[in-house]
Amino acid sequence: MSVDMSEHAGLIAALEAMADAAAAVTLPLFRSDALSTANKLEDGRFDPVTQADREAELAIRAVIAERFPDDAILGEEFEPKAGTSGRRWVLDPIDGTRAFISGMPTWGTLIGLDTGAGPVMGLIDQPYIGERFIGAFGKAYLQHRGVQRAIGVRDCAALEDAVLYSTFPEIGSVAERGGFGKVASKVRLTRYGTDCYGYALLAMGQCDLVIEAGLNPYDVAGPIGVIEAAGGIVTDWKGDPAWPGGRILAAGDARLHAIVLDMLSKVA
Amino acid sequence: MSVDMSEHAGLIAALEAMADAAAAVTLPLFRSDALSTANKLEDGRFDPVTQADREAELAIRAVIAERFPDDAILGEEFEPKAGTSGRRWVLDPIDGTRAFISGMPTWGTLIGLDTGAGPVMGLIDQPYIGERFIGAFGKAYLQHRGVQRAIGVRDCAALEDAVLYSTFPEIGSVAERGGFGKVASKVRLTRYGTDCYGYALLAMGQCDLVIEAGLNPYDVAGPIGVIEAAGGIVTDWKGDPAWPGGRILAAGDARLHAIVLDMLSKVA
Repeated sequence: MSVDMSEHAGLIAALEAMADAAAAVTLPLFRSDALSTANKLEDGRFDPVTQADREAELAIRAVIAERFPDDAILGEEFEPKAGTSGRRWVLDPIDGTRAFISGMPTWGTLIGLDTGAGPVMGLIDQPYIGERFIGAFGKAYLQHRGVQRAIGVRDCAALEDAVLYSTFPEIGSVAERGGFGKVASKVRLTRYGTDCYGYALLAMGQCDLVIEAGLNPYDVAGPIGVIEAAGGIVTDWKGDPAWPGGRILAAGDARLHAIVLDMLSKVA
Repeated sequence: MSVDMSEHAGLIAALEAMADAAAAVTLPLFRSDALSTANKLEDGRFDPVTQADREAELAIRAVIAERFPDDAILGEEFEPKAGTSGRRWVLDPIDGTRAFISGMPTWGTLIGLDTGAGPVMGLIDQPYIGERFIGAFGKAYLQHRGVQRAIGVRDCAALEDAVLYSTFPEIGSVAERGGFGKVASKVRLTRYGTDCYGYALLAMGQCDLVIEAGLNPYDVAGPIGVIEAAGGIVTDWKGDPAWPGGRILAAGDARLHAIVLDMLSKVA
């Protein structure tokens, strides 16, 4: 299904309403003593799921149910909802839960709109800093405390000039860490631990590469929507579509993407 | 020299004027195309020194020269200035230059006031987010977009409950990385790449440990002033005063500090 021009304004307004609804839940709980953290995994590994995550996803789903009751939903915290419209909203209410529970304002609310062939619209919202990154139908912009401006990726054709953001070295298999390490050893600067905020920096031309592994569809739908609208390119490590998740390679410059893809595509 | 009560208000007002002067330089250059980055090291390693660093330090020094011409100054970017008052201002105009040049708002302006036995007052200022952390004469507080509130460290007596922030694994000798790794393997959560912002999170009770190595006095004077006023403890890895720099162990809870000190003090 394609999305025609007359629908765009309504979809963008809905996206903003979803971000507002999520922020109304997350912001009062950020750095709050009232925040309770449960442990999602039973094998002892630490994967925090918070009250804020769950309530924020419910708040977003309520907006969708009201405005687009026939749309499908894929979210991190609850079961998928089937739809009949051909549209699917892909949600991560708090990407970067570890940042959220340790006070670091680099978590974000991620929402992507998929019409069957990947995101056509995406959002990265960081309400504590007051930044909302939106990519929609070929245009990308940042709203920051009431001011909106267009954003775009920057040129960077050479690996040795690139700034790289990633959650590595905390993630990935041995082979994935090896592949990442080869790229990281050749770039100008590598920065860690930024969760979704790295994608926002890529879209606004502040870094050149984001490399991740082990992601879920809801971790990437929002960022893909923002980055592609900002002129960047996001694929998996084989060059295939990134929206199913897994290993992610995002670049601002297609020439840099090709160089790094050649390195990462060899990883078993 | 001791600082008597009648001087406190004037010193705090000066500290705020210094932070305002630095922010007037740094904020317009943050994420600006006009930012030019030079390379400080001639051996090819990447250590960015920016126009913003240098101009912000000059702006802070101008405030000191006007209000306290007899005070000494130790700053990152220019030669130390001798003084006769017994007071020394210890400055890092932009801690986290790598964050600054890659768009990540976790850099900060650090200022500490040393009266001969370590900082009695400290500042961590993050003007893009709009957060100013101040510790002064036993009181710590956060100003955030016009609202001021008291902050303090939190209790955390056990290593397995602790949240750890650090610049590791990018820094340190092999022995230092080994010592850090032992601690990191036992905590609940480790987060990387936050520069001075980790100290601010410790002071406000959002994390429990910050461990660093290879620091300079101007990297720690401001944070020590904030953390100690918030009820925390900062030493080197031997338990000696941290204000000369080097290897840093900051904890919110003295019991946790003792546990980690026992581990790190064995590092060669």
